[in-house]
Amino acid sequence: MQIKELLLQSPSQQTVTVKGWVRTKRVSSSVAFIAMNDGSTIHNIQAVVSDGVVSEETLKLVTTGSCIAVTGILIPSQGQGQSVEVQVTAIQVYGTADPEKYPLQPKKHSLEFLREIAHLRPRTNTFSAILRIRHALAFAIHQYFNNHGFFYLHTPIITGSDAEGAGEMFRVTTLPAINPPLTEDGKIDYKEDFFGKETNLTVSGQLEGELGAMALSKIYTFGPTFRAENSNTTRHLAEFWMVEPEMAFFELTDNMNLAEDFTKSLISYALENCADDIAFLEKRLLEEEKMKKKEEQSEMTLSEKLRFVSENTFERLTYTEAIDILLQSKPHKQGKFNYPVAWGIDLQSEHERYLVEKHFKKPVILTHYPKDIKAFYMKLEDDGKTVRAMDVLFPGIGEIIGGSQREDDYEKLLQRTKDVGIEEDSIWWYLQTRQFGSAPHAGFGLGFERLVLFVTGMSNIRDVIPFPRTPKSAEF
Amino acid sequence: MQIKELLLQSPSQQTVTVKGWVRTKRVSSSVAFIAMNDGSTIHNIQAVVSDGVVSEETLKLVTTGSCIAVTGILIPSQGQGQSVEVQVTAIQVYGTADPEKYPLQPKKHSLEFLREIAHLRPRTNTFSAILRIRHALAFAIHQYFNNHGFFYLHTPIITGSDAEGAGEMFRVTTLPAINPPLTEDGKIDYKEDFFGKETNLTVSGQLEGELGAMALSKIYTFGPTFRAENSNTTRHLAEFWMVEPEMAFFELTDNMNLAEDFTKSLISYALENCADDIAFLEKRLLEEEKMKKKEEQSEMTLSEKLRFVSENTFERLTYTEAIDILLQSKPHKQGKFNYPVAWGIDLQSEHERYLVEKHFKKPVILTHYPKDIKAFYMKLEDDGKTVRAMDVLFPGIGEIIGGSQREDDYEKLLQRTKDVGIEEDSIWWYLQTRQFGSAPHAGFGLGFERLVLFVTGMSNIRDVIPFPRTPKSAEF
Repeated sequence: MQIKELLLQSPSQQTVTVKGWVRTKRVSSSVAFIAMNDGSTIHNIQAVVSDGVVSEETLKLVTTGSCIAVTGILIPSQGQGQSVEVQVTAIQVYGTADPEKYPLQPKKHSLEFLREIAHLRPRTNTFSAILRIRHALAFAIHQYFNNHGFFYLHTPIITGSDAEGAGEMFRVTTLPAINPPLTEDGKIDYKEDFFGKETNLTVSGQLEGELGAMALSKIYTFGPTFRAENSNTTRHLAEFWMVEPEMAFFELTDNMNLAEDFTKSLISYALENCADDIAFLEKRLLEEEKMKKKEEQSEMTLSEKLRFVSENTFERLTYTEAIDILLQSKPHKQGKFNYPVAWGIDLQSEHERYLVEKHFKKPVILTHYPKDIKAFYMKLEDDGKTVRAMDVLFPGIGEIIGGSQREDDYEKLLQRTKDVGIEEDSIWWYLQTRQFGSAPHAGFGLGFERLVLFVTGMSNIRDVIPFPRTPKSAEF
Repeated sequence: MQIKELLLQSPSQQTVTVKGWVRTKRVSSSVAFIAMNDGSTIHNIQAVVSDGVVSEETLKLVTTGSCIAVTGILIPSQGQGQSVEVQVTAIQVYGTADPEKYPLQPKKHSLEFLREIAHLRPRTNTFSAILRIRHALAFAIHQYFNNHGFFYLHTPIITGSDAEGAGEMFRVTTLPAINPPLTEDGKIDYKEDFFGKETNLTVSGQLEGELGAMALSKIYTFGPTFRAENSNTTRHLAEFWMVEPEMAFFELTDNMNLAEDFTKSLISYALENCADDIAFLEKRLLEEEKMKKKEEQSEMTLSEKLRFVSENTFERLTYTEAIDILLQSKPHKQGKFNYPVAWGIDLQSEHERYLVEKHFKKPVILTHYPKDIKAFYMKLEDDGKTVRAMDVLFPGIGEIIGGSQREDDYEKLLQRTKDVGIEEDSIWWYLQTRQFGSAPHAGFGLGFERLVLFVTGMSNIRDVIPFPRTPKSAEF
């Protein structure tokens, strides 16, 4: 039985066996107290070993990090905290952990240090809590979509099209790195490559997702996406997970309604199903906040922030309205923004944060961005200069969702692909969906790690994915 | 409302709007019958247009493949099949589909042809049924693990380690393809590459999955994996999805129990939740079977086969016992096998099929393979020559699951890595889990597409993934 279940049992002298890793061992006169954890919950179970029950040699092997099975009687806990503990009758040591060598001794470790031992950090309270929350959010996503008539579509990871026009992609190849085959005019002969053409890792499943929506009506993707961007920040990963729903017959307002209901529902799910882990991370965060200056401390605790988002209506306004608010704002008038504000600019993080954290103090959905700063596939508004885009901005996170109604008019879409320099040949299949049974449709992308960041209250994206991939780092 | 829900309504003169793609239009004297589908179900809804209700021009645009919204009264169906139909009062045409150009006309298309238009094939009955079943199975996987205390772990896609020693991997790089930076001794200078070393697409998340299990006890992965194998068969994809559970404190028998319960539960879920789609595919399969010779026809229908697997106990035996059965078999004695049978061989497809389809006539779990034909991480049996491996073999599919108890002894594991030539430096983190709190543990990998093949009764793996990636093919 896992420790999570065991802690819920009523003790009635039943014999139990618990398997897990030793967090701490404390020896007082004639009794040893062993705190064990198996990752099923943030809580440890205490195993109490009376003098003489277990041999000296065995007990000596029970150190922090070792893995053991204890058998004993489940009794009401003598100490504070837990309701039950195990009165040990036998211990089996599965694997030791030399205290001189095991890096996770019971003391405070920096997040930086833990990143270097990402193979062991899931054994800490903080990371096991994060990983359990990450799991719960992933499950909530699948459950939400399944309950709402969406089909999970596995869009390809290796792609021959560069439709986002992003450029910053990873090449996927089996050609020899030295002396690859060349064509007569001295270029790489990609016909000789595995797929017979140049291929890359996908930056988004959206375009293929749209193909699914134009047949199954409502689909979503949930898979890894990649950016070969050389940015070493707390917000960027080279490999991250995206959730991308795409819906036929949805217009911009339907898209906003879905995005809001979806994110609220995920956060509610975490609050209900990860209460203990969130409470632990909240406490951790409070301790961290104490180190900060008063004015930098958060006004809300983690769970207050989560409840606030899940219970309040998101503010919806257009980009143009947002620019007006920014132009009227104190930081703009006092020259405190680092970037200038004017209609047409790509909003900077400082602008988004002002809107979300200072002006509205809640999540904001910005719509109708200028077409020139948004992707080619977004539906052109009748004004000819804005597109039916929407970005959902969260406090502390910034953009957590980006989406739009898609251009469903063949001629307009074709024109946009030409404008931005995408070769028609490379996305003939995408264009065809507008030639054959086109329909209004919309969708968005949720950066999964950003959601996990928000729900866990962590501040570095490398700490919410098991094995982060960043420039010059692909260990484990 | 989606068509799936609409078909369940009781008709009471309510006004409804249905949006979807036209499958067929049939005009008889004064009435037009339009069969519409929105991908939510295999069933169409019939829209009946009486003379004069809709303009001639509009009705002319309603052709196979066009996308429309019809508004009308939900009435009891006059014809056979469905219980309700829509008496149309208005039609809005979203997108036309020129009958001269739209490739999916209402006639039989070959699967080969449909693969070339993978962007449109989800609009066919066969592929929409497959994709809905694929979704249902994926959801069932997440639900099963969530209900059983497993945590979904996102293991990395880009990996710096080649621990499977497979060799057939895709290189991931941002180095220039022509004139890449070289070291002084003329080799590629991978220090200049994005991750500062040579990186590849993962062939399995198992090793990282084990790291998770050694902290959280029970984890699973469900993500894309890659093989740069140049094999153009009906069973191989370069990009496919794997499910890999990994459990601390599980030994081989626990592992087998889980694998059996898991697969049965998935198949039961599909039978319960995809009855209509399975019925459609069963009918399709029966028609296909009619083309075959009597002796090649299946003895069971698709749903019979699925129920048979979900309701019967899998046969468990050792590799050594299997070899004995094969040595005693008619095909061996009559020299009908193409490959020789002897202890130590890697079982060929013909051998597995004989065991599963002829001898036992049910799924088989083979255990205790010779160590020399299995991976380095499998736990060595006390006999010193076999490992605690298990393969689950399914009728018509062959190996659907491969797994093992893992070697948890540091010295033995280290020896095996040396034997097979894996550099200690490249998996120091994997080895460390056996130095710090090691525990018995086990896991397996389920090829998701093979499961979908089995449940849909399809015969080519390219037809059960939305956009297949195979040698010389990465379209869409």
